[in-house]
Amino acid sequence: MKTRVYVTLKNGVLDPQGKAIHHALEGLGFSGVNDVRAGKFIELDLAPGVSESDVEAMCRKLLANTVIENFRIEQDQAA
Amino acid sequence: MKTRVYVTLKNGVLDPQGKAIHHALEGLGFSGVNDVRAGKFIELDLAPGVSESDVEAMCRKLLANTVIENFRIEQDQAA
Repeated sequence: MKTRVYVTLKNGVLDPQGKAIHHALEGLGFSGVNDVRAGKFIELDLAPGVSESDVEAMCRKLLANTVIENFRIEQDQAA
Repeated sequence: MKTRVYVTLKNGVLDPQGKAIHHALEGLGFSGVNDVRAGKFIELDLAPGVSESDVEAMCRKLLANTVIENFRIEQDQAA
């Protein structure tokens, strides 16, 4: 079973990586970009029987820093 | 308009970051994880009039290394 975890910085937390991407896009001549926020995307291939609460525990303990980051869990039912 | 870009390593490309996360999860006592793949998630706040083909150009030129990475663009129609 595939489970996807999206980790994003909370609003109000400075995002230097996003700023750098924004600046680089402008340098390449792309206009019309107001803001860029960078995050992480982690795909877990889980054995059957691993519940969403287990994944949430993984996020809280390792995958996300919940002081400055939010996370979102998306389970792929098909696979 | 918010546009989300997901950048993932292609299948077959070694993923040391994912391996490290997998190892750390096992070290924390989480069992049932078969595999972990790490990727990037970039949220762009675009001005109206920036088309999906523009975003694709940004991905090809800057956001993704298309030799080893795939990207997926998701446009948020609501915002």
